[in-house]
Amino acid sequence: METFYIENSYIQDGIKKARQSSSGLIIRQKEPRNLETPLDEVDSFLTPTELFYIRSHFPIPKLEPASYQLRVDGAVRNPFSLSYRELRDMPSETRAATLECAGNSRVFLVPQVEGAQWELGAVGNAEWTGVPLRALLERAGMEEDACEIVLEGADNGKPKEPPVPPVPISYARSLPREKAIRREVLIAYQMNGRDLPPDHGYPVRAIVPGHYGMASVKWLTGIYAVREPFQGYWQTSDYGYWDYLDARPVRRPLGEMKLKSEIARPRVYETLAANQVCTVFGAAWAGETEVTEIAVSTDGGRSWAEGEFLDPAQRHAWRRWKFDWLTPKQPGKYTLLARAKDANGEVQPDQHDQNYGSYVITHPLPIEVFVENPTGSSS
Amino acid sequence: METFYIENSYIQDGIKKARQSSSGLIIRQKEPRNLETPLDEVDSFLTPTELFYIRSHFPIPKLEPASYQLRVDGAVRNPFSLSYRELRDMPSETRAATLECAGNSRVFLVPQVEGAQWELGAVGNAEWTGVPLRALLERAGMEEDACEIVLEGADNGKPKEPPVPPVPISYARSLPREKAIRREVLIAYQMNGRDLPPDHGYPVRAIVPGHYGMASVKWLTGIYAVREPFQGYWQTSDYGYWDYLDARPVRRPLGEMKLKSEIARPRVYETLAANQVCTVFGAAWAGETEVTEIAVSTDGGRSWAEGEFLDPAQRHAWRRWKFDWLTPKQPGKYTLLARAKDANGEVQPDQHDQNYGSYVITHPLPIEVFVENPTGSSS
Repeated sequence: METFYIENSYIQDGIKKARQSSSGLIIRQKEPRNLETPLDEVDSFLTPTELFYIRSHFPIPKLEPASYQLRVDGAVRNPFSLSYRELRDMPSETRAATLECAGNSRVFLVPQVEGAQWELGAVGNAEWTGVPLRALLERAGMEEDACEIVLEGADNGKPKEPPVPPVPISYARSLPREKAIRREVLIAYQMNGRDLPPDHGYPVRAIVPGHYGMASVKWLTGIYAVREPFQGYWQTSDYGYWDYLDARPVRRPLGEMKLKSEIARPRVYETLAANQVCTVFGAAWAGETEVTEIAVSTDGGRSWAEGEFLDPAQRHAWRRWKFDWLTPKQPGKYTLLARAKDANGEVQPDQHDQNYGSYVITHPLPIEVFVENPTGSSS
Repeated sequence: METFYIENSYIQDGIKKARQSSSGLIIRQKEPRNLETPLDEVDSFLTPTELFYIRSHFPIPKLEPASYQLRVDGAVRNPFSLSYRELRDMPSETRAATLECAGNSRVFLVPQVEGAQWELGAVGNAEWTGVPLRALLERAGMEEDACEIVLEGADNGKPKEPPVPPVPISYARSLPREKAIRREVLIAYQMNGRDLPPDHGYPVRAIVPGHYGMASVKWLTGIYAVREPFQGYWQTSDYGYWDYLDARPVRRPLGEMKLKSEIARPRVYETLAANQVCTVFGAAWAGETEVTEIAVSTDGGRSWAEGEFLDPAQRHAWRRWKFDWLTPKQPGKYTLLARAKDANGEVQPDQHDQNYGSYVITHPLPIEVFVENPTGSSS
């Protein structure tokens, strides 16, 4: 077991909370199942499993541990298959990681774009237990010229975003070799100390800390090393963005999460009492670096004040934060914003970058609230 | 000048015909300009320039030879720009090459697919004069690790097939290094012995013999060597297809033309006299190999007979062919088909391959005709 970066009692509290029953999820799509965390209900470092957002591309596949096999092949010297029992008997690691859907906060885009209309809660932080992918790649003897590792799920069907292949396909995403061999990438079978629920990939899923959720392939049944960049459907048609090569647009697959913060409480259009302290709560996260500062604006971005972190800095996990706001005496509508800075000195961008299309919505998201005087009359 | 594969008088005849005035083109799209050759009007090895199909992605750019500059840069040691005059002063080559739009014959697909509804005439064979691309790459000192050459046109705008970049883009396509350095790839300024017309890329275009027309970038202003496969819009969103990597679909750019034949005469639904010799005319072409055999069926594919070539075998140029059909005594509807074989023994496929989507329509195309007895009464 690897040493935790933060003390165990803190984690244990989180797990306790994480096992509490849930106040339910928000439906964004009925089938395939896409359900959102009500972020304002989350008040623990670890998101309770029952509150954790669910992102599915196809109907949930039914896999039985007794017959489950994980196949490791492709550009490897010793391809092999592993049973569920064999996987669980291997040395494991447990680590917290924040997963955010690349389309989280899409509902904030104007004009509206296609796709599930996620608001704030297609993000969660859980503790995952499993075997480092690296251990499996070492056992398989990955070839020197393997440049990517494709992770394949048992979920399959015909996707929608063009261009679409003419046959049903299994969900699959590749990782660059350099990321795949990092110790934090897990072939996981537990979430918050219990076996994965069906919606979260039972019996086995990948966890790729620091990458958007699409990389953490659920219902994982295949690990496939390739000698060329994998141009699968979810690398090109979907989950791609436009990068620039000397000003020429080129299509690339999404990967690392970008620095982001969100306000969890108050909620949009919540009514607050005038001239009272309202504690604004939120969370901030980044990809392969730490979040170091959080700034909050209560006037639509004209001025900013520093917030206070509730969680220590830990790579790949979010940091919850708070900010005590003395609400104005003047009733009216106020726009709250949060903006994080990371260890590299980067801050969130002012606007959504159109090169990411309907993904990577990381600009400060406006949370409009109403301030009223205690009698309820709006002056 | 390179030696012609076929005798000069033959070519000269073709050029003479190629300069004759035209019976007009078929509009497939008004703007941008997409006009089709009436294939039944073509009776020369070289398609007359005025009859040559026009495929445009954006409005025709206006380029002046006096100010024209061709930029060669990217992964090269000595980037440079070349004027029109300088290009014309370099040693040139002249060669015949067949260009076919990758979407030619799309109207034959059932159910109907998106895109210009090309019938038979988005193909033509012309004689092109220009400087081998290789000479320009040698002058620029292409780096050893440059793996592709991007050819860029002056035509630009916002394309339609998703995913689409958020900015207007210039038409651009890349060639693998191995193809780019072959002597047949030309930076051309003449077509059938005259300066390129505006619709065909005036003043300068690329000619990539053996590849679908999309590779022969018109209004060429940039040659850009890259160290990674170029994932531009017309390599991924458009002009791509689904290949398979161990049964996993992966997106790849279209490139080499596939073996194909077409019947130019008679036309669909043409009425023919019963019990008379009707000469069926057509053409056949391939990518990087020669067409060696042509078979014709007049009964919808139940039986096949050998046709006769009118042109010698010449790599990168089509071969016209004919077949004398004694029409049946029995009036009725008959389906004609043509099927070519190449020097590798490959034949055209029986059906359209769905992995190519709305491109690469190379199965034998049914041409339905009516046979009537001389009085015109259909028995």
